[in-house]
Amino acid sequence: MTREFDFITSLRAIAGSPAARQLLDDAAVLKVGGTQLVLTHDMIVEGVHFLSDDPPGDVAWKLVAVNLSDLAAKGARPLGLLMGYTLGREPAWDQCFVEGLERALTTFGVALLGGDTVSSPPGSPRTLGLTAIGEATAPVPSRSGARAGDLLWVSGSIGDAGAGLAIAKGERNGPLSLVERYRLPLPRLDAGRALAPLATAMMDVSDGLLIDALRMVDASGMCAAIDLDLIPLSSDLRAFSGQDRAARLAAATAGDDYELLFTAAPRDAPRILAASRTLSLPLTVIGSIEAGSGLKLTDGAGEVPLPDRLGWQHDARDCRG
Amino acid sequence: MTREFDFITSLRAIAGSPAARQLLDDAAVLKVGGTQLVLTHDMIVEGVHFLSDDPPGDVAWKLVAVNLSDLAAKGARPLGLLMGYTLGREPAWDQCFVEGLERALTTFGVALLGGDTVSSPPGSPRTLGLTAIGEATAPVPSRSGARAGDLLWVSGSIGDAGAGLAIAKGERNGPLSLVERYRLPLPRLDAGRALAPLATAMMDVSDGLLIDALRMVDASGMCAAIDLDLIPLSSDLRAFSGQDRAARLAAATAGDDYELLFTAAPRDAPRILAASRTLSLPLTVIGSIEAGSGLKLTDGAGEVPLPDRLGWQHDARDCRG
Repeated sequence: MTREFDFITSLRAIAGSPAARQLLDDAAVLKVGGTQLVLTHDMIVEGVHFLSDDPPGDVAWKLVAVNLSDLAAKGARPLGLLMGYTLGREPAWDQCFVEGLERALTTFGVALLGGDTVSSPPGSPRTLGLTAIGEATAPVPSRSGARAGDLLWVSGSIGDAGAGLAIAKGERNGPLSLVERYRLPLPRLDAGRALAPLATAMMDVSDGLLIDALRMVDASGMCAAIDLDLIPLSSDLRAFSGQDRAARLAAATAGDDYELLFTAAPRDAPRILAASRTLSLPLTVIGSIEAGSGLKLTDGAGEVPLPDRLGWQHDARDCRG
Repeated sequence: MTREFDFITSLRAIAGSPAARQLLDDAAVLKVGGTQLVLTHDMIVEGVHFLSDDPPGDVAWKLVAVNLSDLAAKGARPLGLLMGYTLGREPAWDQCFVEGLERALTTFGVALLGGDTVSSPPGSPRTLGLTAIGEATAPVPSRSGARAGDLLWVSGSIGDAGAGLAIAKGERNGPLSLVERYRLPLPRLDAGRALAPLATAMMDVSDGLLIDALRMVDASGMCAAIDLDLIPLSSDLRAFSGQDRAARLAAATAGDDYELLFTAAPRDAPRILAASRTLSLPLTVIGSIEAGSGLKLTDGAGEVPLPDRLGWQHDARDCRG
């Protein structure tokens, strides 16, 4: 049990509204009037969620993207954002941040509605928070609806951002395209809205494919059987790290992908593949849901022991409550 | 021009949605379906907005109260909260914080819907953010609707919290009741909803009565004539600091009051006084609105020169955008 786990458990005890979804989902779902609001708040901290030398415009983009990714996972259309901003030491950094923020607002078609700007004591890390408000018309998929027999799907490709982080930190050499996948994630908003009516469960992959899949089956009271060989790797990533078992396990535990992970009945596979073509976005079956609990990993060589580390744990990362 | 002013000006340029109210109001007002949502996000930072040795449960209360005060100023009923929390160094602090949070949720009848918990680098100040979502049925008063001839009103009493802060910091001796007014502000939710249909402009007093009144008349293109002698001081404050001109100026520039400041047509005064009785909350006329700009201060001795400092300025305090 970690500090953060204990804290969130104590919060859960006082968050009894059904709209809070027991703080176990990507977002809250609040019915107001005839509307279903989808609400999320994520923070990013300098030195923890972004690097001090990341371009400030990219940090703004990421702050927006990680929050919109939560809306995407619930099939919601973004309505607006409220930002909490800690003024940094350098005015030029703040100005570049605003320029990146504007690029993100324009790209994703979402309005900045308000927020708060604070000065904090000298030497404090920048701590940025964003609330995203969205609206959903279809039933909002939770993490807990996966059923035995469902197929497990993922959007896009997995592992690029993890490789990009290693390159950004100077640990390895590699292409800028992978760094951009780390710095400029793309929330799958259109896909989320197209898939919400078909998905039995849906969430975004933020902390690592394996740990997030485990959270989904834990919430659903099920087991996920995942074929490592089916996990979609980009051609850039295959060129960077190969695609053997170790490379695939690294990709599946790296995090920061902001792809959609979802389950659906096999009979809906044709509609999902049709959506993939319409969206020009790969949607790939990586396994299936079974009765039981936990994860079962296989690849062409047979059973794969679960790695000790399935992704980012909460004491080092944010908890999407 | 301060750093924060420049930053907010650049944000304003990219926040063009009418719902953002040009980042000049206490909250955003977003129409969704048949509903008017009122949305606000305020942050509090250790060492800036609260003291490191403030009781953690009181910090939780204050975080909730300052955000609900923005909803109160717009006449909104609170629907829910999303919290961004930086885990501190001491688990006991976090636990007491949750207990205070629960007290605030219960007292104000509002639900915790979600949020985010992050760890930040050792030695960082606690940085806490809260988003409050409310719903308004009546037209939502802005800061900019004050008209020549309106009366200027304030709820409750002014200056207690400022005195309480001086006592809490050990600068002066005084009663705990004043410290509680600093640590445990009471958002005027019922009053805000009762007054919203009558007010031509309304906001909460967070940075100081004079600076906030100036913001209101600046937004309205008007002047406020304020009689210092009419500013309501509690009996505790009068016993603590007297009620001469210096004491009244100190109260009117201290901030952290979280009272409602509003304007209304003189013909509505009887209805406002009736609401005061129903609410068991003093509502006091402190002046009137005139054509012109800025503030005019008087007391029984005549004109009062404006003090250099009208309240908390933005580089040291948060901006309620």
